[in-house]
Amino acid sequence: MSEVTLDRRSLIAAGALGTAALGIAGDSAFGKTLSPGQRKADFAGAIKAFRAVVGDEWVAGDASAVIPWTKTYIPDPGGRHAPVGAVCPENVEQVQEIVRIANRFKQPLWTVSTGKNMGYGMTSCATPGQVVLDLKRMNRIISVDAELCTALVEPGVTYQQLRDYLDENNIPLWIDVPTVGPIVGPVGNTLDRGVGYTPYGEHFMVQCGMEVVMADGEVLRTGMGSTKNPSAWQAFKWGYGPYLDGIFTQSNFGVVVKMGLWLMPAPPVYKPFVVRHKRMEDVARIVDAMRPMRISNIIPNVVLMMGAGYQLAMFNRRADVWSGAGQVPDSAFAEAGAKAGLGMWNTYFALYGTPVMIAENEKIVRAAFAAIDGEVLTEEDMVGNPYFHHHATLMRGGLSLEEVGLARWKGAGGGLAWFAPVAPAKGSETAGQIELAKQILGKYGFDYTVAFAIGSRELHHIIALLYDKSDPEEEKRADQCYKDLVTGFGERGWASYRTGVHSMDLVAQQYGTKNRAVNAAIKQALDPNHILAPGKSGIA
Amino acid sequence: MSEVTLDRRSLIAAGALGTAALGIAGDSAFGKTLSPGQRKADFAGAIKAFRAVVGDEWVAGDASAVIPWTKTYIPDPGGRHAPVGAVCPENVEQVQEIVRIANRFKQPLWTVSTGKNMGYGMTSCATPGQVVLDLKRMNRIISVDAELCTALVEPGVTYQQLRDYLDENNIPLWIDVPTVGPIVGPVGNTLDRGVGYTPYGEHFMVQCGMEVVMADGEVLRTGMGSTKNPSAWQAFKWGYGPYLDGIFTQSNFGVVVKMGLWLMPAPPVYKPFVVRHKRMEDVARIVDAMRPMRISNIIPNVVLMMGAGYQLAMFNRRADVWSGAGQVPDSAFAEAGAKAGLGMWNTYFALYGTPVMIAENEKIVRAAFAAIDGEVLTEEDMVGNPYFHHHATLMRGGLSLEEVGLARWKGAGGGLAWFAPVAPAKGSETAGQIELAKQILGKYGFDYTVAFAIGSRELHHIIALLYDKSDPEEEKRADQCYKDLVTGFGERGWASYRTGVHSMDLVAQQYGTKNRAVNAAIKQALDPNHILAPGKSGIA
Repeated sequence: MSEVTLDRRSLIAAGALGTAALGIAGDSAFGKTLSPGQRKADFAGAIKAFRAVVGDEWVAGDASAVIPWTKTYIPDPGGRHAPVGAVCPENVEQVQEIVRIANRFKQPLWTVSTGKNMGYGMTSCATPGQVVLDLKRMNRIISVDAELCTALVEPGVTYQQLRDYLDENNIPLWIDVPTVGPIVGPVGNTLDRGVGYTPYGEHFMVQCGMEVVMADGEVLRTGMGSTKNPSAWQAFKWGYGPYLDGIFTQSNFGVVVKMGLWLMPAPPVYKPFVVRHKRMEDVARIVDAMRPMRISNIIPNVVLMMGAGYQLAMFNRRADVWSGAGQVPDSAFAEAGAKAGLGMWNTYFALYGTPVMIAENEKIVRAAFAAIDGEVLTEEDMVGNPYFHHHATLMRGGLSLEEVGLARWKGAGGGLAWFAPVAPAKGSETAGQIELAKQILGKYGFDYTVAFAIGSRELHHIIALLYDKSDPEEEKRADQCYKDLVTGFGERGWASYRTGVHSMDLVAQQYGTKNRAVNAAIKQALDPNHILAPGKSGIA
Repeated sequence: MSEVTLDRRSLIAAGALGTAALGIAGDSAFGKTLSPGQRKADFAGAIKAFRAVVGDEWVAGDASAVIPWTKTYIPDPGGRHAPVGAVCPENVEQVQEIVRIANRFKQPLWTVSTGKNMGYGMTSCATPGQVVLDLKRMNRIISVDAELCTALVEPGVTYQQLRDYLDENNIPLWIDVPTVGPIVGPVGNTLDRGVGYTPYGEHFMVQCGMEVVMADGEVLRTGMGSTKNPSAWQAFKWGYGPYLDGIFTQSNFGVVVKMGLWLMPAPPVYKPFVVRHKRMEDVARIVDAMRPMRISNIIPNVVLMMGAGYQLAMFNRRADVWSGAGQVPDSAFAEAGAKAGLGMWNTYFALYGTPVMIAENEKIVRAAFAAIDGEVLTEEDMVGNPYFHHHATLMRGGLSLEEVGLARWKGAGGGLAWFAPVAPAKGSETAGQIELAKQILGKYGFDYTVAFAIGSRELHHIIALLYDKSDPEEEKRADQCYKDLVTGFGERGWASYRTGVHSMDLVAQQYGTKNRAVNAAIKQALDPNHILAPGKSGIA
């Protein structure tokens, strides 16, 4: 490429950074596209300066060195989401230095915590030319307060590490994990507004206090963190004045380097359940029966309605279930599911408390399911069933990597992209969504491997788009299918709560122009050089 | 004043708008100070244009017409917090027009919902020269979803109105009210991050979706509100991308014209409790005993430890309790309290659920109090006790104006300012705070009329600064006392979660310079003319 510097602001104004429509031809030395407006000399200068801060061994600045950061499960047919480099600081001061260097060289930084956001992009970036700011080395558990049931951790801390710390110190607190808990951590998951399975499953709701390196290299502490003796930093979420923590989630307004979270006291007793239903259309009844119990907190954790397809895909290959062409029919999932002790819908939830409380709530729950022909089963009924065991583990904050198996449904290529549109928690919302999802997935030959979840008052439709990434043609199809899902559901008013780096702009479009304009204005104010993760959530 | 326009931005840069140190001499026609940088002709032009939008009868543009908006309970010795005018739109379009006019004439607008924020400033403003944007006429309950247990309301809707609506439509949902519930509303209280007394007492936590008129006159809907069919707007808090709702609380970044909130399903049974303790120092033990029960949700609502002084001040005049000089001593409060059926500390909380659940939790709670010599009392024990009745009303979301009586403790002048610093919920935090509060209050001759509250993991120290506003000398003392409280507690790391218009800058200083710089940058980006409520939370 030439040394001509394109005007970055005019590219931003033209929407180019969001869509990378004007992506500049790559420098062959790196085999990758640089960021729009950036000169090759800038990239080289940034890499050199990064090395001076963190040491050579913690910087990847060429095509071969960056390979570990290019692995992804989501479809990326053109490879345009691969980063061009990576830098791994070990402390806050280094992050500050890196951010200052990035400003100097107009080098965009794509921040990741543990970088294991499977199905959403791992360490790949929304737009070309970014260097991964990989915080995995910042993995200190700064404090755990056993009385307040709080923790303060760095971005590289994994759930496994936190669990081990609590065990080693005999602190009777639970953690709440997403799937693949052992390799991911609270900071990254919470900032992506991820969820888990215990009563503390809404991770952003139980987050408390942040330390953020802003784009100018200075440090902001949110909430009570900047008071003279910030002993309430992890105790009180809001602080004073505008509550800012929210703008650092699903965004690119700062680099969160410390985060507080609340931990759940271990309950006296824990009792997991599964309820089986046989027919696809039963999910409407389940949603309507569960909504009041979830809202009244009779059931204090997420009600997860796992489809037979999603369940089977965890522990089987597609060929084990169906050898025909096209989308696996419901009947095949039902048949294979029945053999595995599964219903078409498998509704997981748990009760927590004293034996008396659990017995009382169990009565209420059983009555609700009796009215809708649900088969209520407990641990004793499900001994040896790996599906039950998996969910029973998750619902007590246990660690499991079993869902990684999903990515092998179609083959060893490892293709997985989550699509998760949101609706109100009403049974009437399900039929139209199921029909639409099957139709779009079917058009591209993909299976309807799904779950529904009632978080609180909202219904998540969680669709695992499973494909074989080792087949370039199938990867292209998966990419197009995903985009059709976003657009098709969006047209009906079902927009995603979260999405992968391949579809951030597209999903942002579902949320209206004013929303984007406000985000853009805040971005311009807080990061005038747009060096922090351009393209994240559609924000240039 | 001269017609010379001061440069507004340079004043902002100098911090003048925050402190109004450079307040321009008032126009005698209005008897009030205009906003820095504003010309008299601008004010007149704005008022004229407002009249054209809402009609003459809904604009106050001179000193006598604005009197209804100048009443305040907080100390304001110089009268510098009084507004110079008021405008009352009846719909969103009018708000948009008013905001556009305000930009044209550089006329700052101080937004209020119902304007009854007693003890925090009512409709008075942080800085001089503002016109109150009074949204009381926008009082439509736009929707209530009885299945999802949600509501969407305008800023003028009062809790009484919402309660009546639910009753008239036989919808079995509770509301959660702050004190003086009948005359205030969910939008104003939530935006100020106010709290109530049921399990839905953390109002911002149960808020869901906003419609906001931005400073450019355009409308932003947060969360799911801008999707094509926003049926999940009140069901799902976060939407996609940066979560923005928080920046519209305790701030001046937009005018919230609609807000969604979650409502609590009426529980089968409700059982309120009070626990009496005799000694001032007992509060430390209470906090430590209650923290784990609050965190584990055994007690699902705020644990409110009401001091005898605060309690007595609700229904008595000071002269009934103490006729001596200086601060009322603990012994006098203890003695008068005992006669009224009160302890030195009266810890209120409630249980909600089926009879079995309540019985189970009551056992646990009673055991905890038995260990710390608490006298546990229920409704049967407290028949006819007005204090118990008051709190039992609040903890079921009932409406009461009884706490208004506080403002008459020292006389008919009506002087009240809340000071509420935050600490972690640990008993060890209480002794130092009590000593410091008594010392500062005592220095100015004011009484220690207080409560402590455990919200979740945090301890609020709620100090009612009660004085006689009809005595100008006492008002001055109260003003200085309040400032000493903010500064004195701030030095020890106990900063306020909320404050009145007379002390917003001072409290903002407790939260550090970077916090203020980030707020200022967002303000500049979203409201470049600084026409929305300058000075709110110390943001010019």
